[in-house]
Amino acid sequence: MKTITPNIHPHLVGCNERSLVIHAHQKATLPPQQHQTANRAARLTQLFLSLPILHLENPHPAEQHPCIDWKNLYHHKETVPESPKEDLSSKWREIHGLLDWDNLLDPLHPWLRREIIKYGEFTQATYDAFDFDSFSEYCGSCRYNCHKLFDKLGLGKNGYMVSNYFYAMSHIDVPWWLQKSHLMDRWSKDSNWMGYVAISNDDESLRIGRRDIVVAWRGTVAPCEWFEDLQGNLDNLGDGDGDVKVEHGFLDIYTSKSESTRYNESSASEQVMKEVSRLVNLYREKGEEVSLTITGHSLGGALALLNAYEAAKAIPGLPISVISFGAPRVGNSAFKEKLCEMGVKILRLVVKQDLVPKMPGIMFNEGLQKFDEITRTSKWHYTHVGTELKLDVHASPYLKKGFNFSGFHSLETYLHLVDGFQSTTSTFRVDARRDLALVNKASGMLMNELRIPECWHQLANKGLVLNSYGRWVRPKRDSEDIPSPPSGESSNQAFVDMYTDYEGIVEPFVFAS
Amino acid sequence: MKTITPNIHPHLVGCNERSLVIHAHQKATLPPQQHQTANRAARLTQLFLSLPILHLENPHPAEQHPCIDWKNLYHHKETVPESPKEDLSSKWREIHGLLDWDNLLDPLHPWLRREIIKYGEFTQATYDAFDFDSFSEYCGSCRYNCHKLFDKLGLGKNGYMVSNYFYAMSHIDVPWWLQKSHLMDRWSKDSNWMGYVAISNDDESLRIGRRDIVVAWRGTVAPCEWFEDLQGNLDNLGDGDGDVKVEHGFLDIYTSKSESTRYNESSASEQVMKEVSRLVNLYREKGEEVSLTITGHSLGGALALLNAYEAAKAIPGLPISVISFGAPRVGNSAFKEKLCEMGVKILRLVVKQDLVPKMPGIMFNEGLQKFDEITRTSKWHYTHVGTELKLDVHASPYLKKGFNFSGFHSLETYLHLVDGFQSTTSTFRVDARRDLALVNKASGMLMNELRIPECWHQLANKGLVLNSYGRWVRPKRDSEDIPSPPSGESSNQAFVDMYTDYEGIVEPFVFAS
Repeated sequence: MKTITPNIHPHLVGCNERSLVIHAHQKATLPPQQHQTANRAARLTQLFLSLPILHLENPHPAEQHPCIDWKNLYHHKETVPESPKEDLSSKWREIHGLLDWDNLLDPLHPWLRREIIKYGEFTQATYDAFDFDSFSEYCGSCRYNCHKLFDKLGLGKNGYMVSNYFYAMSHIDVPWWLQKSHLMDRWSKDSNWMGYVAISNDDESLRIGRRDIVVAWRGTVAPCEWFEDLQGNLDNLGDGDGDVKVEHGFLDIYTSKSESTRYNESSASEQVMKEVSRLVNLYREKGEEVSLTITGHSLGGALALLNAYEAAKAIPGLPISVISFGAPRVGNSAFKEKLCEMGVKILRLVVKQDLVPKMPGIMFNEGLQKFDEITRTSKWHYTHVGTELKLDVHASPYLKKGFNFSGFHSLETYLHLVDGFQSTTSTFRVDARRDLALVNKASGMLMNELRIPECWHQLANKGLVLNSYGRWVRPKRDSEDIPSPPSGESSNQAFVDMYTDYEGIVEPFVFAS
Repeated sequence: MKTITPNIHPHLVGCNERSLVIHAHQKATLPPQQHQTANRAARLTQLFLSLPILHLENPHPAEQHPCIDWKNLYHHKETVPESPKEDLSSKWREIHGLLDWDNLLDPLHPWLRREIIKYGEFTQATYDAFDFDSFSEYCGSCRYNCHKLFDKLGLGKNGYMVSNYFYAMSHIDVPWWLQKSHLMDRWSKDSNWMGYVAISNDDESLRIGRRDIVVAWRGTVAPCEWFEDLQGNLDNLGDGDGDVKVEHGFLDIYTSKSESTRYNESSASEQVMKEVSRLVNLYREKGEEVSLTITGHSLGGALALLNAYEAAKAIPGLPISVISFGAPRVGNSAFKEKLCEMGVKILRLVVKQDLVPKMPGIMFNEGLQKFDEITRTSKWHYTHVGTELKLDVHASPYLKKGFNFSGFHSLETYLHLVDGFQSTTSTFRVDARRDLALVNKASGMLMNELRIPECWHQLANKGLVLNSYGRWVRPKRDSEDIPSPPSGESSNQAFVDMYTDYEGIVEPFVFAS
């Protein structure tokens, strides 16, 4: 595993990592009676108390960043956020980790940076289109149908088409995960929209050197405790997977299904794998080279890993990469080894100040490996997988530095930091062009000087509109945007008719029983 | 003073009032050492502890309100909120309190109900159009110029035209009052838009029997402590006012001015009085009958009283009424007596559960009058003025009943309760037609069954828009909506040109020094 710590003085590189290891090791060798007091509350307290040690001890060169001419930032607003795209067709395998991103991360190769942001925006779309309105009968669904999702979110520019949506449920009580409507007559009482499968169009496929299937997994907006609560329940993955163990809660969301539901008669796993297999076969039959890129943020990053594991087992010879943002640990070291063995390439973006990638298992993680060598229990411990690109909030002169759990974890913070990251020894990229305002979509991380309101991504009047009688009402959702359950037929049909006017897919809305 | 307690069992009428009196009296006769402990925190604690006694002891008939057919409420959405308007020309003096609203409040006369709501909506406009965005250079101003305010807010139907805006500042530190921009280059660093003067048009004047001048005072969104902090500082009103004393903080906002400011070279008092006098003279010269109706919510209700006092002294023979919503106490009993003497008619709407009308002076108020008769210190105590129309959250089957400081105090809650109030002995008006959704504009008072989100009154993306370069920006305010300082010339000009295309009034924007 490669750890890149951007913008740290050379003699300090690795220092934070070391302090984390030492801290964990000290914990592990505490007398037994002290271990007993390590309940959740105490662990969290300790976690927060240890934050200054973990994150604030090294003054950062960025803090001495030359004063920004804030007023000139407004000229920036009169340029387009992106320059013309490069032809990646000869380099795509390296960009997707063929050589484990050797020589591409420090300094960060501009082509790779751009691809990371592309996949990050695909993940961001799963938040931006999600219906969080608990008084809507469609709470927990996507606000748009899959044919217009990218256009609605301005992602048409990326050259992909969404081919299908997928849904997830959970059999166990995983608090904070499922967004539920307050209403009885809701589209589904068990399932949430969990993401989508998309595929590159002809132009983009030419540019990137292959037909690229993307699976984007939605994450969750949850407090620290949520991830902490999930700690310590490793499940065997299944027959034939030997010692491989993964976190119980994640696996449950990935695999749960129920005959009595409308959107999860098949599990998220089955829905995704069915669509991916269909697309792989479709394009392989046409003689095209096909790749699979799975992306997700937070919980979504964890599910992306489970998805990659399953796809690698099911579809031999398919190049699979995962690009995850702020993902927690998912499985034990056998899980990690098996993924490596199957050639799954994982690029894991981690903001140094973000607590979620330290979950679950802040106490029982790879920092204990030395200890494990003695006790031989490593297969029980969570471990991160893949190559890490470490980002640092302190590297950006545009971000507030005070502790901000959700701000540090926010996907838009990640995308901003990737956009500005050059190398571990240089300051924030002055020619970074991504719109700074996006950072504050769902957080308050931007410095006040930028004049961008906090958490500005909101609907006018929370979606209420004035009807012709002068009364405020929640408009009926367009029938074409009413969620339809996954099914083989409608899915195929949807894909065939992707750019045609479409009527067949929308089933009449039936209240969940 | 008349106290109407709607929807209480006849044998319970006055019971709440009595318990408050007793409570205050007990306080007043505590031994001295206990008085000393009555600091703000203790008083607030006591206030909250006493709430169940004050508000929850009487089970309310509305709680046994027949089950509402929630689904049928949606048919309601397909009617217009208002029926045709009545000709009030023969009754307007009574409706404005000539006979102290005798026989008009219990049951509530439908014409009066409608007029109360009209003035309430005028007050609500001062919130709806206010720029709360602390990253806007125009934070604290009105988002629209005075010529389009009513059209923007759908109030054109009321038949009034705004003739001028006024601004206020404060010399003393009145926390929670002034909304300030974070920016250095802001439209004003001292002043806030505080309301407007409007006048009835010809049609409405005909309907209501006179030319009606309205002054609408903006209130403030502040926690309970804010009002509590203001307690205990009564100032003499001025020479020639004898024993009249009013609350220092309110008076300061009403009268503060400074040569060094752009919007308060003259005080709010001076700005309002100048415009009101001009309009009175203008229409009196035309031989029209003129009235002045001053309205305000919360702090705005307090300022409305000061304004009424000043207007009554300055313009003899002008019928003046005040319709206030959730206003705190303002002055002592001499202030009250003088207002009565001058013939100012005051209708004070009070939601029983709202704490603000109990401020300032929850401990030292008219409940102590008996005590005063002994000590002869009544001139030092705050007292309410005018006729009270008491409303009750429990009367509405649509409202949540749990304690909700800001919800009980919200102006839209008041307007909803007035709309449904019939009499103290009957239940909520089933044919009340005001849009229920409005209640939740800035609170969460509506029951979940109504499916209206909490605090839904918000701009899309907090006012940010995507510019032609694909970047999120705060659009420049239309030059015609940039606040212009009050001045004799521009004000007259503005009024003359009210319905013409207008250019002269907008002065070039100069950064505040």
